[in-house]
Amino acid sequence: MERTEISDLGEFGLIGLMTKELTHQQPSTLRGVGDDGAVLDPMGKRVVVSTDMLCEGIHFDLSYVPLKHLGYKAVVVNLSDICAMNAMPTQVVVGLGLSNRFSVEAVEELYAGIRLACEVYKVDLVGGDTTTTGSGLTLAVTAMGLVEPDAVVGRDGAGDGDLLVVSGDLGAAYMGLQILEREKNVFQAAPTAQPELEDFSYLLERQLKPEARVDVIREVGDLGLRPTSMIDISDGLASEVLHLGTSSGVGFKVYEDKLPIDPKVYDTAREFNLDPTLCMLSGGEDYELLFTIKQDDYEKVRNHPKLTVIGHSVAAPDAFTLVTKNGPEVPLKAQGWDGLKGRSEDQPTT
Amino acid sequence: MERTEISDLGEFGLIGLMTKELTHQQPSTLRGVGDDGAVLDPMGKRVVVSTDMLCEGIHFDLSYVPLKHLGYKAVVVNLSDICAMNAMPTQVVVGLGLSNRFSVEAVEELYAGIRLACEVYKVDLVGGDTTTTGSGLTLAVTAMGLVEPDAVVGRDGAGDGDLLVVSGDLGAAYMGLQILEREKNVFQAAPTAQPELEDFSYLLERQLKPEARVDVIREVGDLGLRPTSMIDISDGLASEVLHLGTSSGVGFKVYEDKLPIDPKVYDTAREFNLDPTLCMLSGGEDYELLFTIKQDDYEKVRNHPKLTVIGHSVAAPDAFTLVTKNGPEVPLKAQGWDGLKGRSEDQPTT
Repeated sequence: MERTEISDLGEFGLIGLMTKELTHQQPSTLRGVGDDGAVLDPMGKRVVVSTDMLCEGIHFDLSYVPLKHLGYKAVVVNLSDICAMNAMPTQVVVGLGLSNRFSVEAVEELYAGIRLACEVYKVDLVGGDTTTTGSGLTLAVTAMGLVEPDAVVGRDGAGDGDLLVVSGDLGAAYMGLQILEREKNVFQAAPTAQPELEDFSYLLERQLKPEARVDVIREVGDLGLRPTSMIDISDGLASEVLHLGTSSGVGFKVYEDKLPIDPKVYDTAREFNLDPTLCMLSGGEDYELLFTIKQDDYEKVRNHPKLTVIGHSVAAPDAFTLVTKNGPEVPLKAQGWDGLKGRSEDQPTT
Repeated sequence: MERTEISDLGEFGLIGLMTKELTHQQPSTLRGVGDDGAVLDPMGKRVVVSTDMLCEGIHFDLSYVPLKHLGYKAVVVNLSDICAMNAMPTQVVVGLGLSNRFSVEAVEELYAGIRLACEVYKVDLVGGDTTTTGSGLTLAVTAMGLVEPDAVVGRDGAGDGDLLVVSGDLGAAYMGLQILEREKNVFQAAPTAQPELEDFSYLLERQLKPEARVDVIREVGDLGLRPTSMIDISDGLASEVLHLGTSSGVGFKVYEDKLPIDPKVYDTAREFNLDPTLCMLSGGEDYELLFTIKQDDYEKVRNHPKLTVIGHSVAAPDAFTLVTKNGPEVPLKAQGWDGLKGRSEDQPTT
């Protein structure tokens, strides 16, 4: 494979390469890359801003994450935060730190993923900064979005008796990671072994190429539904339920038998001797939306194919419980990934 | 000195520490830290966004840059980019990557500098992300600012015969760096030697604690002066003149005898056997503003204590010349720091 050193291209050459043929799809983007700052026209709306930093060896392992997928995911996790405020993402800026281990071709792969995410979500890449690092790869993405002034939804608006709703299904991204780590171990033990990944495409896609639920934000808006509070699931369902409750000053009761799980997640968890419920509660990286609605809005979500009511809030703050399938209520705890596998180095930090 | 491990505090403990007592000073800040995203009310104005990444060993050397100064500077260099669009900075978000070499006390020092910059510039810290890195310290700052829709100034508006104006004086930050490196070498050779820094306070302050020229933006606005193009000086005057010219499709003639220099910069450059003009042209990190105005506006800047007319644009694109003190014109080249000292590892990006 061809390898061009970044130093051969220089900083401005690299920027030129990364920004060539950049087009804008958002009417709110007035100026993008190429000046001291991008210029946005918020069109009378509120601007939502969110930032995330991803570091090699902490948030991703390049031995099994392709660079293109990494670029895609780095953008998507930020767009998910914008969605979680009930806003539509419109622009991103990307800071990129690279050691000289990376070639120009590697940067092009990474940017191909970044561009693809921008294309898919019709979000404009309007700025960035590229620099050398002593070691490793660091990605810092800041996303912006727009929302009507009266439509902002924070974590703090859940009231007593609100219904707790989650989009999609849970636990798949975590099981995808288990598959990747197993294959990495197999490969290290026997480098000529062929990976067995075909059966796990859904799980791998959820881990390597997560999506931000802009579709859910759009459909919820179309239904005339205004969530009272909302958050996206990056650390795991249990942790996010606690965040919503703590911010809103309420507790939550979650019903185990209501939690949405894909059959493949269930089967694979069993194969790995993991509790499927624990994977859903603490796996994380699902990037689904978790929100509360007024009970009066129940009919709007009841048969919605993308939404599941999984519980409700209770007046007592700090009362977070899981109603188990066989009856008893147990405390709902945010164990993070530590609790699952004792691997604190993998804990995502949002 | 006390040392608390970041792992003892945990991610949420650290975030709590960093965001305690955060207050907002900008009416445009509706929600800050504590949700998936910050929410801004742009108040009918355009939003300007800029991002920068600073990496240990590349952009700063912690053996002589105090963490508090680093935090201050990381914010200021971004505010300077906002000013360069003729906007007033209003918010920042900060991404922070830290290895376990750093204690909680070190993070507090860094944040003290970030907070101080926010206080001084009345800018709100509205979001961030803190994470572990494999090694070193990485800071990713994204700044936002507001500007009236018709007041945005890019790099691309200079016309033929416009006057070229610079704020403040040039070369001091670069000479400050020379002093710091000399003292570092002295210290490595003789660790008990006392540093001789008293005489160089202006130079050191310009290097360690640069300021963004919001005052200049405000005064230029008060004068009813609308620059036709503008950029801030991060890489060095020559490089920035070339950027303005290339973006605007004009050339520039710069007059050596007009370049503003502090006597201390001149004397210290001589002491280091460096050409003072070259320090001004290529030293960089001055974070002064470089802009063009119509000739008709000359009277507005003529006696302004903060502004100096240093040249003018010419119709021929790519014609960049320096009219030297002793007469002949020489090509104006962006040598960067390479040309000065052959130390490419110190070259600032953006």
